Amino acid sequence: MATHNMQNEKLWAGRFEAHTHSTVETFTASVHYDRVLYPFDIQASQAHARMLASVGVISAGERDEIVSGLDKIRAEIENGEFNWRADREDVHMNIEARLTELIGESGKKLHTGRSRNDQVATDMRLFVRHAIDQIMQSLNDLQTHLVTMAKREADTIMPGFTHMQPAQPVTLGHHLLAWNAMLSRDHDRFADCRKRLNTSPLGSAALAGSSFPLDREITASELGFDSVADNSLDAVSDRDFVIEFISCASIMQMHFSRVGEELVLWSTPQFDFVDLGDAFCTGSSIMPQKKNPDVAEIMRGKVSRVTGHLMAMLMLMKGQPLAYNRDNQEDKEPLFDTVDTVFACLAVLNAMLPEAKFKHSNMRDAAIKGYSTATDLADYLVRKNVPFRDAHEVVGRIVGLAISKTKPLSELPLNELQAFSKQIEADVFEVLTLDGSVNARNHVGGTAPVQVRAAAKRAQQIINSR
Amino acid sequence: MATHNMQNEKLWAGRFEAHTHSTVETFTASVHYDRVLYPFDIQASQAHARMLASVGVISAGERDEIVSGLDKIRAEIENGEFNWRADREDVHMNIEARLTELIGESGKKLHTGRSRNDQVATDMRLFVRHAIDQIMQSLNDLQTHLVTMAKREADTIMPGFTHMQPAQPVTLGHHLLAWNAMLSRDHDRFADCRKRLNTSPLGSAALAGSSFPLDREITASELGFDSVADNSLDAVSDRDFVIEFISCASIMQMHFSRVGEELVLWSTPQFDFVDLGDAFCTGSSIMPQKKNPDVAEIMRGKVSRVTGHLMAMLMLMKGQPLAYNRDNQEDKEPLFDTVDTVFACLAVLNAMLPEAKFKHSNMRDAAIKGYSTATDLADYLVRKNVPFRDAHEVVGRIVGLAISKTKPLSELPLNELQAFSKQIEADVFEVLTLDGSVNARNHVGGTAPVQVRAAAKRAQQIINSR
Amino acid sequence: MATHNMQNEKLWAGRFEAHTHSTVETFTASVHYDRVLYPFDIQASQAHARMLASVGVISAGERDEIVSGLDKIRAEIENGEFNWRADREDVHMNIEARLTELIGESGKKLHTGRSRNDQVATDMRLFVRHAIDQIMQSLNDLQTHLVTMAKREADTIMPGFTHMQPAQPVTLGHHLLAWNAMLSRDHDRFADCRKRLNTSPLGSAALAGSSFPLDREITASELGFDSVADNSLDAVSDRDFVIEFISCASIMQMHFSRVGEELVLWSTPQFDFVDLGDAFCTGSSIMPQKKNPDVAEIMRGKVSRVTGHLMAMLMLMKGQPLAYNRDNQEDKEPLFDTVDTVFACLAVLNAMLPEAKFKHSNMRDAAIKGYSTATDLADYLVRKNVPFRDAHEVVGRIVGLAISKTKPLSELPLNELQAFSKQIEADVFEVLTLDGSVNARNHVGGTAPVQVRAAAKRAQQIINSR
Amino acid sequence: MATHNMQNEKLWAGRFEAHTHSTVETFTASVHYDRVLYPFDIQASQAHARMLASVGVISAGERDEIVSGLDKIRAEIENGEFNWRADREDVHMNIEARLTELIGESGKKLHTGRSRNDQVATDMRLFVRHAIDQIMQSLNDLQTHLVTMAKREADTIMPGFTHMQPAQPVTLGHHLLAWNAMLSRDHDRFADCRKRLNTSPLGSAALAGSSFPLDREITASELGFDSVADNSLDAVSDRDFVIEFISCASIMQMHFSRVGEELVLWSTPQFDFVDLGDAFCTGSSIMPQKKNPDVAEIMRGKVSRVTGHLMAMLMLMKGQPLAYNRDNQEDKEPLFDTVDTVFACLAVLNAMLPEAKFKHSNMRDAAIKGYSTATDLADYLVRKNVPFRDAHEVVGRIVGLAISKTKPLSELPLNELQAFSKQIEADVFEVLTLDGSVNARNHVGGTAPVQVRAAAKRAQQIINSR
Repeated sequence: MATHNMQNEKLWAGRFEAHTHSTVETFTASVHYDRVLYPFDIQASQAHARMLASVGVISAGERDEIVSGLDKIRAEIENGEFNWRADREDVHMNIEARLTELIGESGKKLHTGRSRNDQVATDMRLFVRHAIDQIMQSLNDLQTHLVTMAKREADTIMPGFTHMQPAQPVTLGHHLLAWNAMLSRDHDRFADCRKRLNTSPLGSAALAGSSFPLDREITASELGFDSVADNSLDAVSDRDFVIEFISCASIMQMHFSRVGEELVLWSTPQFDFVDLGDAFCTGSSIMPQKKNPDVAEIMRGKVSRVTGHLMAMLMLMKGQPLAYNRDNQEDKEPLFDTVDTVFACLAVLNAMLPEAKFKHSNMRDAAIKGYSTATDLADYLVRKNVPFRDAHEVVGRIVGLAISKTKPLSELPLNELQAFSKQIEADVFEVLTLDGSVNARNHVGGTAPVQVRAAAKRAQQIINSR
Repeated sequence: MATHNMQNEKLWAGRFEAHTHSTVETFTASVHYDRVLYPFDIQASQAHARMLASVGVISAGERDEIVSGLDKIRAEIENGEFNWRADREDVHMNIEARLTELIGESGKKLHTGRSRNDQVATDMRLFVRHAIDQIMQSLNDLQTHLVTMAKREADTIMPGFTHMQPAQPVTLGHHLLAWNAMLSRDHDRFADCRKRLNTSPLGSAALAGSSFPLDREITASELGFDSVADNSLDAVSDRDFVIEFISCASIMQMHFSRVGEELVLWSTPQFDFVDLGDAFCTGSSIMPQKKNPDVAEIMRGKVSRVTGHLMAMLMLMKGQPLAYNRDNQEDKEPLFDTVDTVFACLAVLNAMLPEAKFKHSNMRDAAIKGYSTATDLADYLVRKNVPFRDAHEVVGRIVGLAISKTKPLSELPLNELQAFSKQIEADVFEVLTLDGSVNARNHVGGTAPVQVRAAAKRAQQIINSR
Repeated sequence: MATHNMQNEKLWAGRFEAHTHSTVETFTASVHYDRVLYPFDIQASQAHARMLASVGVISAGERDEIVSGLDKIRAEIENGEFNWRADREDVHMNIEARLTELIGESGKKLHTGRSRNDQVATDMRLFVRHAIDQIMQSLNDLQTHLVTMAKREADTIMPGFTHMQPAQPVTLGHHLLAWNAMLSRDHDRFADCRKRLNTSPLGSAALAGSSFPLDREITASELGFDSVADNSLDAVSDRDFVIEFISCASIMQMHFSRVGEELVLWSTPQFDFVDLGDAFCTGSSIMPQKKNPDVAEIMRGKVSRVTGHLMAMLMLMKGQPLAYNRDNQEDKEPLFDTVDTVFACLAVLNAMLPEAKFKHSNMRDAAIKGYSTATDLADYLVRKNVPFRDAHEVVGRIVGLAISKTKPLSELPLNELQAFSKQIEADVFEVLTLDGSVNARNHVGGTAPVQVRAAAKRAQQIINSR
Repeated sequence: MATHNMQNEKLWAGRFEAHTHSTVETFTASVHYDRVLYPFDIQASQAHARMLASVGVISAGERDEIVSGLDKIRAEIENGEFNWRADREDVHMNIEARLTELIGESGKKLHTGRSRNDQVATDMRLFVRHAIDQIMQSLNDLQTHLVTMAKREADTIMPGFTHMQPAQPVTLGHHLLAWNAMLSRDHDRFADCRKRLNTSPLGSAALAGSSFPLDREITASELGFDSVADNSLDAVSDRDFVIEFISCASIMQMHFSRVGEELVLWSTPQFDFVDLGDAFCTGSSIMPQKKNPDVAEIMRGKVSRVTGHLMAMLMLMKGQPLAYNRDNQEDKEPLFDTVDTVFACLAVLNAMLPEAKFKHSNMRDAAIKGYSTATDLADYLVRKNVPFRDAHEVVGRIVGLAISKTKPLSELPLNELQAFSKQIEADVFEVLTLDGSVNARNHVGGTAPVQVRAAAKRAQQIINSR
């Protein structure tokens, strides 16, 4: 009978009399999603087998059979010839059972001194480490794009906004470097996460370590880990690295959501600061004129699913007594979907951002209209020895006049300005220009074009030094 | 060229000059998951076509071609013969494009007076409504199991816990009816959610309604909606029903997590109150003696993913200006996974709970050891006219004595008890028994077996009346 | 010694030998926030005392002492004369201890047949019910404002957006009714939540019911509950009503965040659709020209804190075994802050929205520039018997031409239009006007002014009927 | 008129004609909670004044007036003499307005070259940095307690659990070091967060930098920052450090929830592994025998509120366009409550854990009953050359026999064991003992007492080296 045969396959069924209920197999199986761990599972099993041989627990011949059997399984999987079976529960049992089919008795020795608990903890760390390496590479590309764009747009003037109101003129290059600054922190957070997760749980066995004379340094070293996890109970029950990774990803996706929102906003005909290009927009099924910034919109939305995964993982681990509990199986789908999401967003941004065409004259016009040099006028008064708070109040009243006349500040005649403060003289009109304003912010971190070019250079050096 | 052909397929490409970028197609496509909407999409399109014919926008012949073409597509999908194409983006475009392949010109008329915005809103409501109907049916089954078990266990005494400390003796039937009470609220919440979502967005078109003389009552009625959505802008941008559904599901899964935790706890050898059966447990890859309550553990964990989806949806909708934004595409995977999770948990609980074997004597022993009748002793003193606060303090000191002698309260000799309060007489020993204690809680909502039987009867009547 | 005296105050200290650790008192005390429950705690205690007297557990004299003692305490609290003490832990113990100070022995009898577990569950339900009643009243006001504004703005044309791109012209009245539609669902969700929570836990005692002959119907009826909670274990451990309430609040705040975002967007000089008024804006500490829509911004942000509270509550209840656990004390601050936030947002919206000045000509200009009647042109072609998909493609190309000529559709000459489709005739220009477009959407839920007026009338009737 | 006077106080009111609406002042004011920032606000203002003088923007005399005026304000606040005013909005405006009251004209110059945007960003970073320093110190204490306890309990045998089922015997010292391992990662995460946040936003002004010749290195250095923030737009809009801090706190509180759950579980009479002491437990208002582990329960629950705050912050920042938006004001209460929660939990754990009395014989008895040496039997067979998978199956059947005879494995007679496998010999009974089992796990990370002592020593060295 089919069910009975399946049950016989269960590698833990020695003490069980009844078969697993039909609803349970689908409820508990994970192989339909955890199979993505296969390269790491095989890599870790090969390292384990080599170590077992080197400490004499298995023979060199058994080791070679295991290692080459696992190579064969990797090839089967990559060629689409592997028969993944739900009754074998997970990626680990599928591979081990297949190994025994292929090489016989030696296959049954692979799991000596090991448990699925330390095995999956090892696989997961290798998986996350690999994902981080790819993310950091992709971030290098994206940051290089931004720095290149920033240099190109170092002189492009646009309104800087606070409260979504024009505040002071800035340069587009400065704005693009603000995006880069966010990504730099993301890069460093992932690097810290990688450093912290890169310790080997292998050898922790089920929870207490093993009674075999394992040499954990051997497997740790072969798998590229920096160290050996210092406590077996912790090693099998710890999922901090998954949470920290998803936290880093949530923050980065939040940054992407801000970039996405700005691109959506700048694509409106009201702002009209950017053309994202037909290749990154889509149309409407009903409205023929529409060119929608769908990619930027989805970019804005994606932070939600990753943050949802972060919440799921923290909630999952809440209140779990030591050591491993089966709840932890629920760590995989949030993690895998997070990795997929991050990869997709990075790929799209790397393609889309360099193609964005910024509309310089629209940006400049918007800056002129927004009274964005009012602060410069106040600062001008301060330099004429008016206390800042008094200067602020005077300029507030001047702006009120300009609004009532629907004129920019620079078009108010000198005598009208002087009616508010006799410190105002003819040289005031220099500080009221956009170029005067941005060039005046000439200190580290300021928006002056010369500062933007210097900052871009520093940013590229940081990327190059990684 | 392949890309070019794909681009030609885009049903909105009229004003576009450049092709969609290769990264974008995968980033924006949803057909790999939204295809589960196909039965609802077809149902709604058929209703729309019939309405268009009835108001004279298309001919009866065109209507018949569309309806039978859609029938054919449904059959293709159900037979696995349908060619889902990512370049056709989503389930709607896949079906519509296939319809035009099958029936020609008439197919191009189906989308008259309609947009993907009202189409997907309609499909999603039909999908959620269908899910709720299935959930409510499954809850009926599960509650019937619980009520049946409660009747069977109306006399089974166990410790009732607060703070996970034995507090007062209760009956297992009473405890099972507490689970049932949670599920009753879940049922009613889903019913309220269903009532609220059952209004038809169809006819809202992209956002403003249609310039065709649509009769929205016709489609609403054919699709089983109670009413027509009163505002087109709201109808296409509203995802409240998804959030409310996932909120109901989160609360229910939180209840399942409590049941799961209790079953895990009761399965420990320390408690040993229940045997969940081999069919609902699994073993260990390394420890041959293990029989793990994996199903109950996963049940405990599943609330996390659903709560994560709830967070994702609220975050997704935050701050979206009207009307439809593409971010909303991100509503589907959280919803679909929630439905899958809820269905799976209900199926497993319906199978597992009736098979649970409760260990009556272990439960009773645990109640005896926990000084769980101390409150009865205080109440006894109150009936002898000691103010409750004084009685509470006296009994506290008696318990201190009992602990120091490692004896249950009922084994302290009368003279020792009387040293604490001269109101204590020989009749005190009746109130110190477990059966005396549970039988004394004989009011509506109390744990007395007679009340449990009455409550079970009322609960079954409620289920039957649905 | 001070500590010793405090310890003597603990109403549960009978069996304890050591005093509470100094860090613990602050860690576990809740009186600094749960004191807001005092009116409900007193109301419920008075009902309990009356019931105890009516079933003969206390005398009529004791009842009167208790009731008037509690009246006195209420007055002390409201006059700021009550001495809240952290060593008395919570609102319940503070009031009960004070009662005994005031009336002596009778005060010690109040807690007969009751526990803090059913007491706090009762207080919390009364608190949430009261909050809902206030919210529903405030929603009535806000919806009435919106409906009044919608009538006033039924003819005001603005661009309707999808993807934040102009899509089709709509009327501002229609947009305002979309906001109202969201709030209608909020109202109904709160009403459902109220219905479900309005059941009395009182009489459940600690977890199992009481050994006294309580008449739970008496207290339920006096406190305005619709029914008596059917299961004591559930009644003391259930916090569904808190979660459901915060879920309703999260959805409503999400709606507020959408309104806030639209007001912020419409306040930018780029959109310039609205003037929120000086009374609802603030300035900058440095930029004298700034008039920032701070209130709308904070409105946009507030959903975050309430959603955070929803997360906290679901996580808190996850995996709790029955019955009451002390973790549940953490339910109060999220609930109280949610209520405060909702009240504040409703008050501000009720003040701000009626004062908003919409800039009609800016709205109309924006609609003209956005090719928002392209769908009308496609519909026109359909009425001339072009299949919709073909019409869509033709119009897409016409829009391309118009963009390249930077002209609105209505300014393309007829012969140029006819080059795309010979079905286009001179009557086409009627459908290309904004007024023609909105008037054409003349079905239930459509944006035509006549429909907006009818919808506003229906909406007001619904509000009036509550 | 009072309102008018208040309005006159607004430091930004120059261009405003109407007064702030009464509902708005309470809605937007933050001084009732952000006043905790005062020491950092004063410190940063003093540094700013010194820098302004050193670059010649203000005079030495003005600098001295400002610095000593701020010293006076600090004293007023600390003596409870400061009049916090809601009409002055926030901590910054309250202090600055008071400064001008105290010192006149010079006070109006303090805000030269500065904005509230860079001011609050600076204050917040100083606040978080200070909190981290305190947390790391408290973690040192807590980890030292755990390491000390681990040494003391290196030989104490208890059951190690997986799936809350006894799995293999471990030592309590090993378990306590697992808790320590969690906290070590927490410490390092906070250290990384501190490193990343320690950069100075001061000088970024509103968003674009300042037109005054600020020397940002001077203020950065005086305030102990490692560097100057490289981009002014980013510096005023970045709240990553708040999110990263709350993320670190959420993970740590998740660890505390696991410790709390274990202490609650171990306090049940069923487990009875620990006595937390009267000083860390509380009683019941109704059940005189109760001694509830309230502190451990609340510890379990607290992760929920902090995770809720994390959710709130990520959601708050989602989709915000650059630069500062008023939504960001909502960052403070989640942050402040997180800090309060973390401090309280650390204080309680530092007090409670060293006082916990572990019940050695109960722990050992539980290990004996759980067949926890079954893995050792399988390993024994492997050493006799039985492949692990076959050994696992044989032992599974032996355990089945032992269960049916209700005997521990070590009490099955040799001949019965040999019926399952002829490789079993008399030496098997050594591996079946608890001490044999734990001593066998003698490799780095294993539970053997000798390893626990070595691990404790390493752990203490790490703490000492910080």
